[in-house]
Amino acid sequence: MKLKVNQEDLYQGIQTTSKAVSSKTTLPILSGILLETQDDKIKLVGTDLEIGIECFVEAEIISEGSIVLPAKYLTSIVRELPSEEIILTTEESNNTAQIKCGNSQFNIHGSPTDEFPLLPEVESGINFSISQEKLKAIIDQIEFAVSDDESKPFLNGGLMLVENGSIKVASTDTYRLAYREDKIDAPNLEVDEIIIPSKTLSELSKLLSDSEDEVQISITENQALFNFSGISIVSRLIEGQFPNYKQVIPDQNSTTAQVNKDRLLSATKRAALLAKQDSNIIKINLKSDKLIITANTPEVGQAYEEVPIDLEGEETEIAFNARYLIDCLKVISDENVNLELSGSLSPGVIKTTSECEYIYVIMPVRSA
Amino acid sequence: MKLKVNQEDLYQGIQTTSKAVSSKTTLPILSGILLETQDDKIKLVGTDLEIGIECFVEAEIISEGSIVLPAKYLTSIVRELPSEEIILTTEESNNTAQIKCGNSQFNIHGSPTDEFPLLPEVESGINFSISQEKLKAIIDQIEFAVSDDESKPFLNGGLMLVENGSIKVASTDTYRLAYREDKIDAPNLEVDEIIIPSKTLSELSKLLSDSEDEVQISITENQALFNFSGISIVSRLIEGQFPNYKQVIPDQNSTTAQVNKDRLLSATKRAALLAKQDSNIIKINLKSDKLIITANTPEVGQAYEEVPIDLEGEETEIAFNARYLIDCLKVISDENVNLELSGSLSPGVIKTTSECEYIYVIMPVRSA
Repeated sequence: MKLKVNQEDLYQGIQTTSKAVSSKTTLPILSGILLETQDDKIKLVGTDLEIGIECFVEAEIISEGSIVLPAKYLTSIVRELPSEEIILTTEESNNTAQIKCGNSQFNIHGSPTDEFPLLPEVESGINFSISQEKLKAIIDQIEFAVSDDESKPFLNGGLMLVENGSIKVASTDTYRLAYREDKIDAPNLEVDEIIIPSKTLSELSKLLSDSEDEVQISITENQALFNFSGISIVSRLIEGQFPNYKQVIPDQNSTTAQVNKDRLLSATKRAALLAKQDSNIIKINLKSDKLIITANTPEVGQAYEEVPIDLEGEETEIAFNARYLIDCLKVISDENVNLELSGSLSPGVIKTTSECEYIYVIMPVRSA
Repeated sequence: MKLKVNQEDLYQGIQTTSKAVSSKTTLPILSGILLETQDDKIKLVGTDLEIGIECFVEAEIISEGSIVLPAKYLTSIVRELPSEEIILTTEESNNTAQIKCGNSQFNIHGSPTDEFPLLPEVESGINFSISQEKLKAIIDQIEFAVSDDESKPFLNGGLMLVENGSIKVASTDTYRLAYREDKIDAPNLEVDEIIIPSKTLSELSKLLSDSEDEVQISITENQALFNFSGISIVSRLIEGQFPNYKQVIPDQNSTTAQVNKDRLLSATKRAALLAKQDSNIIKINLKSDKLIITANTPEVGQAYEEVPIDLEGEETEIAFNARYLIDCLKVISDENVNLELSGSLSPGVIKTTSECEYIYVIMPVRSA
């Protein structure tokens, strides 16, 4: 294999695919990135067997071939090279690559391509598309609530389904649940519940742009494929039954407070500074015209915050883990949110209603 | 004590003084910042007994007083408060402070002022001044080479002296030595060798601005005082005898290579990627028109870099710890540097000659 490629293009491709490369793999070949000539491009592939990322980089191919090179070294070397033309030559007899650029030359030991796992072909799936911008916004509003409790693998990802012209996503760690529903331009499409691994959600969010360009999604029984901007991501799906999110979302409440999101977020962050470090509890007291947040760390002091609200229903109070409230408010871009409560022992709900429906349920804590 | 102060002003004062507060102190009072009214200002003081930082913040003083408040909580609370007027009230009977700002109110437990150590008065010292910009540049070029070997406390700081109209500073960790000499506008000034602790150098560098404004320096037998921008830093000096730096700087050489600093830095950084992780060795080969850097990590591969040079004297080669070379080149702003060598067993020297004299000596390593 011999080819010429622009340093910046190659670096971008390496960065993209290296997101799928696991730093702690028991299979040494998986710490590498596959490089393979294909027509007038180089195909780059990285995978940890759970997620695979493939992308193409424009290149001038002088002779065809392929090699697997260690991702860590390839990334750092190409990053540091000058922004010039790179000449990449491989010696297939001993699996080495030579990287020349300006006055720099690197000889790197690689591995033969035939040991590298093929990404599965995702063929006869259910296909639909959504804008990159919208998919990114959906993921960012639910990803943070995914559980990392490995004893419950069905919670280690985000639920996704399509029904009645809407895409619905949810995640929960049993202390809080994030749910979002968006209209989708495919009235007859039905996608049964699938669970997309947390890592896939996170890498998708990083690689998706804020553009109207579409992501082509293809779902099979145990895989999902995402195609956008010349990047393909193949992800394993998580097996198991996701909890019934509809049961978790309260269908009524006795108190609704409309509140400015930024003011509530700032006040919560400040009060959290004096929430006891182990339990992180803040108390919220809803009065007719204001919401009062208090926190107390006996050896340090107390915090008291007031935020104006529009209240409908009963005055009430509740205690939350401050972090769960902050996590949610941070990913909301709306000016106002509704806080819905039904006394101090029932879950609290944060809702926004612009564009999409976003519902966030937080379990209350018993405050001493 | 009761006063009104602008949030941003108070936060800046807290940030400045908290740099002297140690996070791991055995004396609880030292984890606090002293606040004390003084005329129409608040004086803030932080100290770990080795370094003390004092600064003043404009305030509207309603009643006088003082308190010590925990630096960690004070910093995070004032940082998160809105950019408005803060009303600070203390209750001296039980050492508590109330911080009110907008709709926020914090009650914080403090400590009585009389337990807080007084910063020593630095009175009859040798006084001189230098621009902030220059002192910062001097510190930045030597601070990184200070030793952190606690068994040799006299190396845990930077040497400073003034003689013959020049300020001279040096630091060494025995593997490399950094030395800088600048003209100073005080022909008759003499300051004997003092050793300024590493932490003082580091905090000075962070607080000094790139301005022509002067730093007033006052040196006594065991303390140094730095006054600038309304900030006072009092530092203990390190006792002991700093090594004779003049003996370490070679006074002749058999090879001088003039080289572009940025090109040498980039090439060294790249080659270092394949320097063996434990010893970090790169080899430098000086030819008549180019400098060749090579590095080798057997299990990964080899790096080869060329940088054009103007050579005077003999062709030669030498091996260095790549990090030592990178550390030095990173803090040089000159376009070109001279690399002076005397064979592969003698120390190498990097020199710049614009404005000030900067000399950096690196011990060679024996390459296998």
